Amino acid sequence: MRLSLSLIFFASALPFPASGQSSPAPAKADVVQYHAAIDNVKYVFGVAPPVAHLKPGNILEATSLDCFGNALQKPGDTMALVKGDNPLTGPFYIDGAEPGDTLAIRILDLQVDGKQGVGTFSPGFGAVNSTHYTPVLETKPLPERIWFYPIDKEKNTTTFQALDSDFQVSFPLHPFLGCIGVAPANGEARSSIVPAEFGGNMDAPEVSAGNTLYLPVNVSGALFYFGDGHAAMGDGEVAGSAVEVPMRARFQFELVKGKHAGWPRFENEKEIMAAGVYRPVDDAVRIAVTELIHWIHADYGLSELDAYELLSKVARIHLTEMVDPNYVVVASVEKQYLPPKKH
Amino acid sequence: MRLSLSLIFFASALPFPASGQSSPAPAKADVVQYHAAIDNVKYVFGVAPPVAHLKPGNILEATSLDCFGNALQKPGDTMALVKGDNPLTGPFYIDGAEPGDTLAIRILDLQVDGKQGVGTFSPGFGAVNSTHYTPVLETKPLPERIWFYPIDKEKNTTTFQALDSDFQVSFPLHPFLGCIGVAPANGEARSSIVPAEFGGNMDAPEVSAGNTLYLPVNVSGALFYFGDGHAAMGDGEVAGSAVEVPMRARFQFELVKGKHAGWPRFENEKEIMAAGVYRPVDDAVRIAVTELIHWIHADYGLSELDAYELLSKVARIHLTEMVDPNYVVVASVEKQYLPPKKH
Amino acid sequence: MRLSLSLIFFASALPFPASGQSSPAPAKADVVQYHAAIDNVKYVFGVAPPVAHLKPGNILEATSLDCFGNALQKPGDTMALVKGDNPLTGPFYIDGAEPGDTLAIRILDLQVDGKQGVGTFSPGFGAVNSTHYTPVLETKPLPERIWFYPIDKEKNTTTFQALDSDFQVSFPLHPFLGCIGVAPANGEARSSIVPAEFGGNMDAPEVSAGNTLYLPVNVSGALFYFGDGHAAMGDGEVAGSAVEVPMRARFQFELVKGKHAGWPRFENEKEIMAAGVYRPVDDAVRIAVTELIHWIHADYGLSELDAYELLSKVARIHLTEMVDPNYVVVASVEKQYLPPKKH
Amino acid sequence: MRLSLSLIFFASALPFPASGQSSPAPAKADVVQYHAAIDNVKYVFGVAPPVAHLKPGNILEATSLDCFGNALQKPGDTMALVKGDNPLTGPFYIDGAEPGDTLAIRILDLQVDGKQGVGTFSPGFGAVNSTHYTPVLETKPLPERIWFYPIDKEKNTTTFQALDSDFQVSFPLHPFLGCIGVAPANGEARSSIVPAEFGGNMDAPEVSAGNTLYLPVNVSGALFYFGDGHAAMGDGEVAGSAVEVPMRARFQFELVKGKHAGWPRFENEKEIMAAGVYRPVDDAVRIAVTELIHWIHADYGLSELDAYELLSKVARIHLTEMVDPNYVVVASVEKQYLPPKKH
Repeated sequence: MRLSLSLIFFASALPFPASGQSSPAPAKADVVQYHAAIDNVKYVFGVAPPVAHLKPGNILEATSLDCFGNALQKPGDTMALVKGDNPLTGPFYIDGAEPGDTLAIRILDLQVDGKQGVGTFSPGFGAVNSTHYTPVLETKPLPERIWFYPIDKEKNTTTFQALDSDFQVSFPLHPFLGCIGVAPANGEARSSIVPAEFGGNMDAPEVSAGNTLYLPVNVSGALFYFGDGHAAMGDGEVAGSAVEVPMRARFQFELVKGKHAGWPRFENEKEIMAAGVYRPVDDAVRIAVTELIHWIHADYGLSELDAYELLSKVARIHLTEMVDPNYVVVASVEKQYLPPKKH
Repeated sequence: MRLSLSLIFFASALPFPASGQSSPAPAKADVVQYHAAIDNVKYVFGVAPPVAHLKPGNILEATSLDCFGNALQKPGDTMALVKGDNPLTGPFYIDGAEPGDTLAIRILDLQVDGKQGVGTFSPGFGAVNSTHYTPVLETKPLPERIWFYPIDKEKNTTTFQALDSDFQVSFPLHPFLGCIGVAPANGEARSSIVPAEFGGNMDAPEVSAGNTLYLPVNVSGALFYFGDGHAAMGDGEVAGSAVEVPMRARFQFELVKGKHAGWPRFENEKEIMAAGVYRPVDDAVRIAVTELIHWIHADYGLSELDAYELLSKVARIHLTEMVDPNYVVVASVEKQYLPPKKH
Repeated sequence: MRLSLSLIFFASALPFPASGQSSPAPAKADVVQYHAAIDNVKYVFGVAPPVAHLKPGNILEATSLDCFGNALQKPGDTMALVKGDNPLTGPFYIDGAEPGDTLAIRILDLQVDGKQGVGTFSPGFGAVNSTHYTPVLETKPLPERIWFYPIDKEKNTTTFQALDSDFQVSFPLHPFLGCIGVAPANGEARSSIVPAEFGGNMDAPEVSAGNTLYLPVNVSGALFYFGDGHAAMGDGEVAGSAVEVPMRARFQFELVKGKHAGWPRFENEKEIMAAGVYRPVDDAVRIAVTELIHWIHADYGLSELDAYELLSKVARIHLTEMVDPNYVVVASVEKQYLPPKKH
Repeated sequence: MRLSLSLIFFASALPFPASGQSSPAPAKADVVQYHAAIDNVKYVFGVAPPVAHLKPGNILEATSLDCFGNALQKPGDTMALVKGDNPLTGPFYIDGAEPGDTLAIRILDLQVDGKQGVGTFSPGFGAVNSTHYTPVLETKPLPERIWFYPIDKEKNTTTFQALDSDFQVSFPLHPFLGCIGVAPANGEARSSIVPAEFGGNMDAPEVSAGNTLYLPVNVSGALFYFGDGHAAMGDGEVAGSAVEVPMRARFQFELVKGKHAGWPRFENEKEIMAAGVYRPVDDAVRIAVTELIHWIHADYGLSELDAYELLSKVARIHLTEMVDPNYVVVASVEKQYLPPKKH
């Protein structure tokens, strides 16, 4: 048995001007720098001693290892070399953040930190094979496989090379972070493979430069973590991996005091975006869409039924991944279709 | 108890050159014309006397009523005026089509046939309210509502006018058909509100000019129907309606003899697209993605694991609707990312 | 797009005394007899010429073939011999039944009509293997298999004989009908493998002697069908078959005029039972439980919240099958826990 | 991205004779006693300083508070008095337990520790109303409600008293623990409202005297917790609460060294039972049924297909709850239907 969770819906404030992809950080912000290594990463979103403190307005420049701890480097390497999934950089303590606040994370820049990415298939994990949470009887599991993806930063592309034929093809980079989150609520600690209300392994391409992510603050200091860089990824991350890469990241933090969102939210100059992070996909959609309706109602003043109707005409719904322990859907609407924001 | 369904996966042939939005129909094709009216529409995808015959290569020019049978015209009109949902134009008998074939439907042109569209909310129907198939206890159902959308063909826009405030906003037209399908397999007849293997009420923006739709032929003549024109729609059609309009449509038909797809497929010059049409969304995704992998393997020669991996990097997954008795997901990949098609 | 389905919730009347397993039929009822054969069965729940007429109060004594049309008789027989799944006996026209009524079907007696039952596994069908509607990639499908089950009527048991070892074990018979239903609403015709609002392939052990089944009447005469006899079955019918047998059945029909249930309901002397028939199981549970709450509120006078609370303490929820195109859940409560029925 | 979870399926050992409801504990076992109070309870399954140590074979006699911390005692009390949900007694450190082992928990006795139980409805929580994880738009949430249930130990019953009418009815007690579990794997800590691989808030009536529960050991000492006593509960715990009571419990612990189950398992003299603990219910069923098949194959020697077929004839599938963050299904089979256990 449990009681109802009470949510205080939050009227977004976008505490700095919403930014486009190229907007520079404020000139005088203090910058904290941090370098991830295999002996300082974490594997859990939870309470742990902070690796650094930042004040609201400060900028963080930090690196992350790839989701395999950079262990897969060349043909012949196998999963057995991987010491843990999704090593996280952090946690970073945001001074002044208290439960009930919202942490706004402005993603200023993401750069692939290396010359190659990795893709893997592991039996038991994926959207359309027998898995831990959707098991089926089978005569023999599919085999483990590893693909390497050279990164061409000049052309802004990476290249798929088939393993069972000689086909290869290049496609554009879209760098983003698979993992980004804070310490969960209710004293929980969650594996870095899990996405949920606190963010986590959302595998959302929306976690890219130019977007701001809002997360609920659940513990003093919020305790910010990130990792699992992706150079590019298809919708749903169906076979279970993106083009997995180490990353160099630049963030700026701000606090919205006394306001608390139930679920992660994104914003940029053009769109507002609400995430639903649960299973099945149907429920992730229900969460994302009701959150977006509540957001429009609270901040832009449409009635809930008018907002519902408008979304039925112009909403976008993005299935970011259907392979992790929870699934992630982002529902969004362009600001040009909304009334002016309420003060 | 039932036996397994056996599927013969089909290697697509694209029986005419894949077309862009503006490609003209072949010059000398015979043209069949047909005009829908409230006394000649159908409400079921099934076996019924054909309203016309077409030969492969022929062109059909026909109109459809809107999903309310054009019954809602002005403020004050109510759902009580609607005699039946999704009236269908058809069926059209395609000469030579036999069970085991695939019907290729080239969508040459779609034009909104009127000056106004309609959007409605009905309690019991929608993605995020209590419904017939996902019922919850509630103190009072949400109220019925109707919105009217003036169509501006010159600007290619339509306009939302809020009912509970004075906000209005315009957004672009993207005309497509909510309903398109053939007679189902196994002697079934399905309501025009249902999407399934035979197509039907897929509410897929992919049913637009420039795309070719492949459907399995289940009965002699295939028995093609269409209707439920949409001037524009958001992903998921979340409140249960698009901008509902009468439509003028132009199609060309072709047959792929002796090949049979288990589920609807789309194709144009740039993409191949596989639909999954079932519940929950998770299973619709599984159907769409496995179908796309089988398609790539059969026609483009990648191994299934290579195809799975490639889709994990470049696939698009589109939730077209989550409101009808089955849900619809379209998984797609750009042809530029695939090997050359096998002969 | 579609409108809301409007449901008129029905206050059950139980038009004859609720019966225990042994209660005899009224003495003077007319009896209609009918014998199923492979050339008179149907494979669709829909409108078809009736094979006989019955008046309310009449008794039907009829036989059904097993779900394979009695085609599997001995080791070495294969699925290829099966001409169609779930051949149905009927339809029977119930005089006076009109849309908006409820048909009450009292199941007086069911007897296994033979000395042996059959169980099968077919790849592509089952609760925990890759299927048509929940497909996954696999290296090789599981193999087709057939088990034969001798029936011992004296001991009231049947016997499982393992195929891959020499183990055998007997277990009790519980004869019931996998298929029982009427013509669907909205002009639909549904395959005999499908359960839905009209009943159909519910694979519910509740369809056994002593129970009364209520189904909505959707067309004049209701058009009653049955088949797919089961000598015994586990919850969920997980591998896709029960102990499949031909059956001899005895029913009595009654009409509840002007009352209409949205979903199938069962009743006997001790319990009321509401079925939810859809996908995923979560939604089948939601349908069954909300129906049971509405039923208790309408007929037994508890408020909806009191009924909800009481069910949280004493309800039973039965997953009958999770293998057919829709899944079936029956939620029930003992009448001893309810207030006296309202007049 | 994450890697596959690797599971080592475990061949059960039942380290002491499977017990019936009345079987006494071994005569000479050491007994540890512990008394729960509001200032020593925990709200998280995770690593915390143990409140006591036990050796394998030892007996634990301990009490638990009800799920509201015993805060709701009389009409007029409200949820606002509740300081936390599901306060847990523990953790208890089992000497010698190491990751990779299985902890066998023999439930020797459970006694309701008080004269009254409580049932509650909270908007946002329940199987058939708008919830945190399945939200829908609504005009007004359902109201909060509290029911009190006097316990009659002599008659072994408790009594429901309707709030909106003067109806009351008694029904039998079946005391069990809603919460029972160990510290989770992968460094996670989970709220006491969550059930998962580690057990937790399974709300399973199978956690009753006479049954043995097997849980995977994930940390040294296993760290055993329990709480959330239920005097009785309906399938699904649909409105979100059982008859919530404080409990006096008696357990005996044993270790199965070097064997590890992926999911919780139950056993008694007559049955083996495998739990699936996830969302949606479909996946919980898939987990429970595949686990049961693997168990039968490993310990009783049937081939997987024979086990699958046998379960299709004699399995029981129990939906214990559909209200917590994960749902719980228990699939079971009677041992009389299985071959003799392998040595």
